Amino acid sequence: MEVEELIIQSALANWILTITRLNKFFGALSPEDFLEPVAPGKNRIVYILGHLAAVHDRALEILGLSSRLHPQLEATFLTNPDRAIDFVPDGAELLVLWNEINKHLYDGMLTLAPAQWVGRHLAVSEDDFKKDPTRSRLSVLLNRTNHAGYHLGQLMLSGKLKS
Amino acid sequence: MEVEELIIQSALANWILTITRLNKFFGALSPEDFLEPVAPGKNRIVYILGHLAAVHDRALEILGLSSRLHPQLEATFLTNPDRAIDFVPDGAELLVLWNEINKHLYDGMLTLAPAQWVGRHLAVSEDDFKKDPTRSRLSVLLNRTNHAGYHLGQLMLSGKLKS
Repeated sequence: MEVEELIIQSALANWILTITRLNKFFGALSPEDFLEPVAPGKNRIVYILGHLAAVHDRALEILGLSSRLHPQLEATFLTNPDRAIDFVPDGAELLVLWNEINKHLYDGMLTLAPAQWVGRHLAVSEDDFKKDPTRSRLSVLLNRTNHAGYHLGQLMLSGKLKS
Repeated sequence: MEVEELIIQSALANWILTITRLNKFFGALSPEDFLEPVAPGKNRIVYILGHLAAVHDRALEILGLSSRLHPQLEATFLTNPDRAIDFVPDGAELLVLWNEINKHLYDGMLTLAPAQWVGRHLAVSEDDFKKDPTRSRLSVLLNRTNHAGYHLGQLMLSGKLKS
């Protein structure tokens, strides 16, 4: 395998590892657990789930893979903080969207060749990309992996999963 | 620039972004802040700082860059959980070690060529590496970036930094 393909494989493996850990966490929750905050007064678990789903849905667009599957997530989970919008969160329903979005996203990522990974992502202009060629699709993958890990760290503080 | 070099640059940029965010957090703390837990009953900030320093110190060895600079960190911050060992943590002193370790680590990473990044890291055997070629130095970088982001997410819950 080419060096560049091996590198992409490592980045994708790291993505999947993080998603798998998140799914293990979410999969262990009762409906009531979803409504608890990760720490007193902090974001509820269901909000973080919706937030991650919204961010990954937007990544479909930024990576140029497809339009968003569930743009309605944005107002509740991206534009506004937790508890700002009066909604009845249903963890199980959100989990269905989350899995659908992640599958779509990963399937799309598997179709990208190395040259596409180092190409410009769609939230950066051609001019800005010339100035900073690290603002590539790959940087989106690495950043989103890190973002998911950031929230995984917070979710684990809730004590809902022991390992 | 070659595709593989661009990819490594993106991974290094993502590492530096996470380290910079951590330094912004730690740099804003008073000596008393270091002794507070990130959430009630959870790890203290100073423990997470020492833990990250110990993990990055060990990464020097795993990446084959050098031996560890501060192996004494392991017992307090890796082998044992917070509060298990009776120590007088000094956030400012630990920050000095943390910065020293990170500088050494990053300087070393900058010397690695793409072919070295996709080579075996030193915590995996040659046989295991043949079975799974994603267990490379690069995977160590990606995993440690993610690990640092995981704890950054927890630190941010402490409310000690507002942005």
